[in-house]
Amino acid sequence: MKQSLRMLALLMAALGVAALFVVHSSQAKSPPTKGEMEVDYRQSLYTVLSGNFGPLGAMAEGKMPFNAVEARTRAQRVAFLAPMLKEAFPADSDGVAHTAAKHEIWTEPDEFAKKLQTLIDRTTALAAAADTGDADKIKDAVQDTAKACKDCHKKFREKDKD
Amino acid sequence: MKQSLRMLALLMAALGVAALFVVHSSQAKSPPTKGEMEVDYRQSLYTVLSGNFGPLGAMAEGKMPFNAVEARTRAQRVAFLAPMLKEAFPADSDGVAHTAAKHEIWTEPDEFAKKLQTLIDRTTALAAAADTGDADKIKDAVQDTAKACKDCHKKFREKDKD
Repeated sequence: MKQSLRMLALLMAALGVAALFVVHSSQAKSPPTKGEMEVDYRQSLYTVLSGNFGPLGAMAEGKMPFNAVEARTRAQRVAFLAPMLKEAFPADSDGVAHTAAKHEIWTEPDEFAKKLQTLIDRTTALAAAADTGDADKIKDAVQDTAKACKDCHKKFREKDKD
Repeated sequence: MKQSLRMLALLMAALGVAALFVVHSSQAKSPPTKGEMEVDYRQSLYTVLSGNFGPLGAMAEGKMPFNAVEARTRAQRVAFLAPMLKEAFPADSDGVAHTAAKHEIWTEPDEFAKKLQTLIDRTTALAAAADTGDADKIKDAVQDTAKACKDCHKKFREKDKD
């Protein structure tokens, strides 16, 4: 009986330590570092960008009915947001946990800037296409923009991180 | 000795279970629900919005040197992004974990819409003030915008959630 109680106490202690660890890891966060805040901003910018590009992609693929007014609004947002990415890769945000941004972004800045500029140019063209209200022109511009996204991700984004 | 080994085995088992739980809670995420994705979009929009309003606040408070060009860019972004909040509170995003958005947003939609429109109007005025390049006018418009943020948060945002 005494031995069972000791074992129970030991088990409870072990689970207690583990529980503290779980609570710590999920709640008692330390203040974010400068780099972590920069990654948070960058990921948020991409979330808003892709949240608005998504419906354009769906319209282009026929998964959502074409709507010229919505397409124009979304395209204007995408074109407004894309150039903001130019400031979203400061040096402190290299190597921060939970970023999918590869180190090569900072070691090959010219190549990265070139790919980013291609994206920006294509989103400008997308907004111009959306201004015409022509579904086919918009579809082509959406596909060109999606290619620019993929081309940059292929080289500069880790596939297996979130 | 045999008893010590049993206690050690019990301890290891308990820690093993706990470790599995930690791994599960931090990595093995289930796909996000519609509401969770909506909350992610909303929080991202606020992050980008506040990331651009921040420097305006810092300039208004004298914590950062006034720069008319940067103030104009930031104000234009804030004015562009604020109206996007109108779509950022769909019904599915009510009551989702980790949202600070109070249920009253959906039960008092007219009051919420009114406060949000006040914010939008003030960000429009902020962008107009920033177009003049006049530091004092910008400072006043920044303060008016900050008041609109706080006034809405006071009623519709949980203080203790992230």
